[in-house]
Amino acid sequence: MIVHLKPNIPAAKIDELAVANQAIRFHDGTRDVLVLPSKIQTLPESLKPVADESFATKTDIQLASKEYSSHKRSITIGDVTIGGDSMNTMMIAGPCSVESREQVDQVAQLIKELNIKTFRAGCFKPRTSPYTFQGLGEEGLKILADARDKYSFNIITEVKDSSHVDLVIEYADIIQIGAKAMYDHSIGKRCGQTKKPVLLKRGFGTTLQEFVQAAEFILSGGNPNVMLCERGIRTFETQTRFTLDLCGVAFLKEYTNLPVIVDPSHAMGYRYGVADLTRAAIAMGVDGLLVETHPTPEKAKSDASQQLNLDEFRKMYGTLQPIAQAIGHKLI
Amino acid sequence: MIVHLKPNIPAAKIDELAVANQAIRFHDGTRDVLVLPSKIQTLPESLKPVADESFATKTDIQLASKEYSSHKRSITIGDVTIGGDSMNTMMIAGPCSVESREQVDQVAQLIKELNIKTFRAGCFKPRTSPYTFQGLGEEGLKILADARDKYSFNIITEVKDSSHVDLVIEYADIIQIGAKAMYDHSIGKRCGQTKKPVLLKRGFGTTLQEFVQAAEFILSGGNPNVMLCERGIRTFETQTRFTLDLCGVAFLKEYTNLPVIVDPSHAMGYRYGVADLTRAAIAMGVDGLLVETHPTPEKAKSDASQQLNLDEFRKMYGTLQPIAQAIGHKLI
Amino acid sequence: MIVHLKPNIPAAKIDELAVANQAIRFHDGTRDVLVLPSKIQTLPESLKPVADESFATKTDIQLASKEYSSHKRSITIGDVTIGGDSMNTMMIAGPCSVESREQVDQVAQLIKELNIKTFRAGCFKPRTSPYTFQGLGEEGLKILADARDKYSFNIITEVKDSSHVDLVIEYADIIQIGAKAMYDHSIGKRCGQTKKPVLLKRGFGTTLQEFVQAAEFILSGGNPNVMLCERGIRTFETQTRFTLDLCGVAFLKEYTNLPVIVDPSHAMGYRYGVADLTRAAIAMGVDGLLVETHPTPEKAKSDASQQLNLDEFRKMYGTLQPIAQAIGHKLI
Amino acid sequence: MIVHLKPNIPAAKIDELAVANQAIRFHDGTRDVLVLPSKIQTLPESLKPVADESFATKTDIQLASKEYSSHKRSITIGDVTIGGDSMNTMMIAGPCSVESREQVDQVAQLIKELNIKTFRAGCFKPRTSPYTFQGLGEEGLKILADARDKYSFNIITEVKDSSHVDLVIEYADIIQIGAKAMYDHSIGKRCGQTKKPVLLKRGFGTTLQEFVQAAEFILSGGNPNVMLCERGIRTFETQTRFTLDLCGVAFLKEYTNLPVIVDPSHAMGYRYGVADLTRAAIAMGVDGLLVETHPTPEKAKSDASQQLNLDEFRKMYGTLQPIAQAIGHKLI
Repeated sequence: MIVHLKPNIPAAKIDELAVANQAIRFHDGTRDVLVLPSKIQTLPESLKPVADESFATKTDIQLASKEYSSHKRSITIGDVTIGGDSMNTMMIAGPCSVESREQVDQVAQLIKELNIKTFRAGCFKPRTSPYTFQGLGEEGLKILADARDKYSFNIITEVKDSSHVDLVIEYADIIQIGAKAMYDHSIGKRCGQTKKPVLLKRGFGTTLQEFVQAAEFILSGGNPNVMLCERGIRTFETQTRFTLDLCGVAFLKEYTNLPVIVDPSHAMGYRYGVADLTRAAIAMGVDGLLVETHPTPEKAKSDASQQLNLDEFRKMYGTLQPIAQAIGHKLI
Repeated sequence: MIVHLKPNIPAAKIDELAVANQAIRFHDGTRDVLVLPSKIQTLPESLKPVADESFATKTDIQLASKEYSSHKRSITIGDVTIGGDSMNTMMIAGPCSVESREQVDQVAQLIKELNIKTFRAGCFKPRTSPYTFQGLGEEGLKILADARDKYSFNIITEVKDSSHVDLVIEYADIIQIGAKAMYDHSIGKRCGQTKKPVLLKRGFGTTLQEFVQAAEFILSGGNPNVMLCERGIRTFETQTRFTLDLCGVAFLKEYTNLPVIVDPSHAMGYRYGVADLTRAAIAMGVDGLLVETHPTPEKAKSDASQQLNLDEFRKMYGTLQPIAQAIGHKLI
Repeated sequence: MIVHLKPNIPAAKIDELAVANQAIRFHDGTRDVLVLPSKIQTLPESLKPVADESFATKTDIQLASKEYSSHKRSITIGDVTIGGDSMNTMMIAGPCSVESREQVDQVAQLIKELNIKTFRAGCFKPRTSPYTFQGLGEEGLKILADARDKYSFNIITEVKDSSHVDLVIEYADIIQIGAKAMYDHSIGKRCGQTKKPVLLKRGFGTTLQEFVQAAEFILSGGNPNVMLCERGIRTFETQTRFTLDLCGVAFLKEYTNLPVIVDPSHAMGYRYGVADLTRAAIAMGVDGLLVETHPTPEKAKSDASQQLNLDEFRKMYGTLQPIAQAIGHKLI
Repeated sequence: MIVHLKPNIPAAKIDELAVANQAIRFHDGTRDVLVLPSKIQTLPESLKPVADESFATKTDIQLASKEYSSHKRSITIGDVTIGGDSMNTMMIAGPCSVESREQVDQVAQLIKELNIKTFRAGCFKPRTSPYTFQGLGEEGLKILADARDKYSFNIITEVKDSSHVDLVIEYADIIQIGAKAMYDHSIGKRCGQTKKPVLLKRGFGTTLQEFVQAAEFILSGGNPNVMLCERGIRTFETQTRFTLDLCGVAFLKEYTNLPVIVDPSHAMGYRYGVADLTRAAIAMGVDGLLVETHPTPEKAKSDASQQLNLDEFRKMYGTLQPIAQAIGHKLI
């Protein structure tokens, strides 16, 4: 149960009530909020004097639920707004990893040319083997920050474990929590203490319920700017790298109040299907897309098979705006 | 290995060569064809004198492969053509099951009003429990045939086991092989003996490789008119009925020469996501769509939760043509 | 709801009541039985005068449920009894396919030597490709029948579609319904009309609920002799052929009244793990095991990688009886 | 490729060679070791002068592979030894979470009574919702340490993210890395810097290949004491909490040199199947078992449905030694 408190309740009193009700407390910008376990379906007596409004939800999807707020949250990053009434679909593009200053610059020029406003690249790579490229770390973050200064776009980059979450928060405009880090509460809680937008990727073995519950760790810390990113789940089918779960996207749109982003690159794992899946996602009216592109994919240090080269990306990008318009959206 | 034989080889000689090479033989309308096991990668000596052309493939996807024919097959049903160079997307719509003459008529009027050319409804239902509605059987087929006469559309209906395959072939314009019957070779082989178009649904636990191999049972019988239908696979995610595998659709488009149909209704299992997923599939440029609609879904005898009512269907349908046009397709 | 009828109700009356209550009727050897849809939780008025006893179940697992009969069913095949109070575990062994009279004879000698009482081999193979060995058909059945005459064991062989179900029923002592044929109701209903024991394999994409519901098709036809066989489900893990679901076996033991058989060979797909998994299954106290063995596995026409050679089988078999005894069972 | 270096190579030289060959270096107690990417299949020229022995492996499973060492590693924790030639199966038992000093004491008495040598309980709980019990943290660790002093057993407890890895290393005799933390390299690398034994749980969406690769992060840090724990994978079957992958256990036994532990409690998720699955795992000859037990499971703050009560545990435990003996093992 979510409880909006009346104004001017003393902090010590709120703490006391939070402990007594096993609740998490935070300030949502407008008011103090307590979140009780979801099995509490009626307002406890002790909270009646201080409660302004309360919201019972069917599951532990609470702050992210349509039951709490039927309106989709609006998130603004620099001059880009998604969600709310915006009808915008944000394109996020860039290479899998920062590999060098030159490589970032080559992709950045394309992003600028196409007037895309959000650039992605990873610096801390969650590789499954210790014997492969692990990313450039902070050096990569500096390369990204310089590209931002030069080209004036937003940058998004990934945190893979809690040891470098502060660094990523400092450098990035959007913090990406990777699929393998989704269950890491120390990251989630740390991201709850900032207002920087967070793109939370679904773990590939994660149910939709658990996925949104991971967002609750951030939301209940007081950061309302969370985007959910579907990037493919692991199924018995191995001809493609993962299985993009667009039924799940429909579920997230129906039952949550968070913007939804789709990453077709990681789901497909092969260049050949990325353009088609990107078009599919746009036609669903999602709030954002994340597509990998690299100057020379065959030489990429990670995800070589799935990154579009710059020409392939440009060609694909040219087909997207008409689909967005056909459903009343705008690709930005 | 597929071998095109020269003209005028005596039938007895072809039979003899087929046996000697463990090959399946059929006539494809133009020529006699032998299909040898795929591990045969070079033309056997015994076939050199009679072979016109031969095609080696990497897997037991042979007749359906792009390696055999890089051009997508064209299929014509009445005045509807899909595949080939048509750029058409065929809408197939109707209720899950034939329940009564009145129910079929109500939906048929909508289909006619929207100028949709293909009507679906099942008469033999592959239910998982013996204690639920099993379909009207041949009585249902007659109701469908009468609707076809009255409204002049094509009808498609399902065969669920080999005991009634002849009946369905007799009545239907397109034979649907259900997901649970996909591995039934006696159906596949029987459908190979007709030229009627066959819509083959992917089993929900079936890999893409096995799915296309099931089509080979039909193709190697001599029926070239096979459509592949993705309808959702079973994964760990149970908030939705199945998981629509659009990565798999991208694979089928890339590696096979067969038209691809998408069924969002069964994948989603809930009304709320069907329109979005239908739009997604169209934006991928698929050759057809299969969407369930029912006059009163809440009273339907099967699949009650996933069928759109007639107004919902009409509203959704109105949004589709612009997306089709955005990618240069036409919805028919 | 299952309803036991009083004796001496006229057949015409029973038929009338069955139709009026959408019920399936059969005679279970002792009495007439009606099975109504499971959502019926209280005895309908029309049945009160004729009902002796009634049983409501929570799901459409009705005749197979512990709610209906808390005692495990006993099944006798020749001089072998499993289930009931027997504490027997039946070993079923033999090659994947009948390939020749000599091959069957070689394995049969081993089976006889080890005093195993049940011999398996397939004649109709549910292959996924039309271009591979499809089985010897009726010729194979005759070879099996001759081996039975010579060695005095029971034989079990597979039906893969309804076109040859009568043949298999005629020849076999136990009818095996294969994993891919599990949803084929025409087979299930036909097997309901005989009393021959049926070993029903779980489809690899089939939930436990659906699996047991498939058994209901046979049970509600009047054949009480159904065994459930777990043989591996399809998961994201592909290092092994399938994933043997022993959690599912625990579920079947807890909630159903049917004997449970485990097939480690198909689950594992590789020789190296078969002995370990066989020992695991015995330690769970299952009612039977199905293990493939072949004189020369590397030359087998199907499932070459998973069949034990005769020495491997003999060696493994020697380790099993002590485990069975440790849990109070006897391997027969 | 793994390269054993000759003795007395200067550290600076080793570092230089490691960088030049993109290798990880560590000292394995006997010698300096370099691990190069697995695609390197022949010893590089630059390493020939310093190499004593080298080992090429087929995949990035290197230090854990049978190709590197065909003998299973032996691990000693206090007076308990598993792996190697020990033929021991170690029972690890205890509640899911430390809830109170009294609760720990109640279970500890049973563990002592049964002469079990390893006690488990979690202090940092990786819950999927922020609104449920998150564990007692360091207070729990102190309770565990006190129980160890009082009862003289080893304790194992879980690290769920890198923020408290140092604490867990300090208190525990065996460090458990939880299923959701398996991909967290900062934990893996930190555990590589200690010699304390590590029980690494398989992520429920993790392939066997990735699972063992996660162990490589620890092994290549220089800690040879890694145990692999199968605890159920997520599949389409939801009647049970997860699906225990004993085919995977067979794979790990065949291809890796690490001891293998099985956790039936988390896999099953329900009390009723735990005893059967424990017996199954023992019969496979695994090196250890992890079973949850709680004085009053129905009141447990986490995993209430799957923990055995003390009587159920005692009763189950009494059945295990005979099975272990039947296969020549000893349960300790």
